[in-house]
Amino acid sequence: MTDPVLTVRGSRWISIACVSDLRGRLNFVETGKGLDFLPRRIFWLHGVPPGHRRGRHGHRQAEVVLVALAGGCRVHLDDGKVKEAVTLGDPGKGLHVGPLIWHELSDFSANAAILVLASMPYEEAEFVRDHDEFKRLAAARVA
Amino acid sequence: MTDPVLTVRGSRWISIACVSDLRGRLNFVETGKGLDFLPRRIFWLHGVPPGHRRGRHGHRQAEVVLVALAGGCRVHLDDGKVKEAVTLGDPGKGLHVGPLIWHELSDFSANAAILVLASMPYEEAEFVRDHDEFKRLAAARVA
Repeated sequence: MTDPVLTVRGSRWISIACVSDLRGRLNFVETGKGLDFLPRRIFWLHGVPPGHRRGRHGHRQAEVVLVALAGGCRVHLDDGKVKEAVTLGDPGKGLHVGPLIWHELSDFSANAAILVLASMPYEEAEFVRDHDEFKRLAAARVA
Repeated sequence: MTDPVLTVRGSRWISIACVSDLRGRLNFVETGKGLDFLPRRIFWLHGVPPGHRRGRHGHRQAEVVLVALAGGCRVHLDDGKVKEAVTLGDPGKGLHVGPLIWHELSDFSANAAILVLASMPYEEAEFVRDHDEFKRLAAARVA
């Protein structure tokens, strides 16, 4: 089954390989197998109370893949021109978000655990946290 | 707070760094920050029905870190001499399992999602799936 195509640039759904049998499901990624970067930082969001948002930034260079390991949330993507919101809620689907894509996560379910694999170690200077600055950088890129 | 020490050799609890505020919790690892290897394979177990076990092998070389991102399970460790069972159920605690430690996972809660970070890509020859062979290899190592 083909994954739905996103209209936001630099973002796509990834079908994550799965070994499924009577003993449950195992989803896996390796560099070259569902993942086109080496994960240098891995983090997970959980216990997000109703009404709160996470993310709200873009990365200058880093790529990330988001997967809902439990529960789910909405992800709002913005490439500076096009905005799109998608639902993250399947442990077998990853959302790849490229550099200079503003992303916000909202509507976390009570049990949500969202895994994020990032292509770079944490580096604050690499985050764009001001939306106006993001718009300028995105406009410069797509120009 | 010091993590409880395991009696099984080559295994330990890891406190995973956490950024916690009104917007929920974010746990993170990087190589050198909670993780002493570069994760080359990342997988997650979920939908494991009651009564089923996972794992049931040792690795010749690979190290793994297990974290319960949602729900939990029991982990049975065996270094060839000492056996120990622990509960995995905290998204802020990783269980580091070194090479040649037999490990089995049981008693998955209905909502369990168990994240595993492995130091090597998947390679079947690197798994020891026969417990007698494991015992021979473990005995040779600790001799």
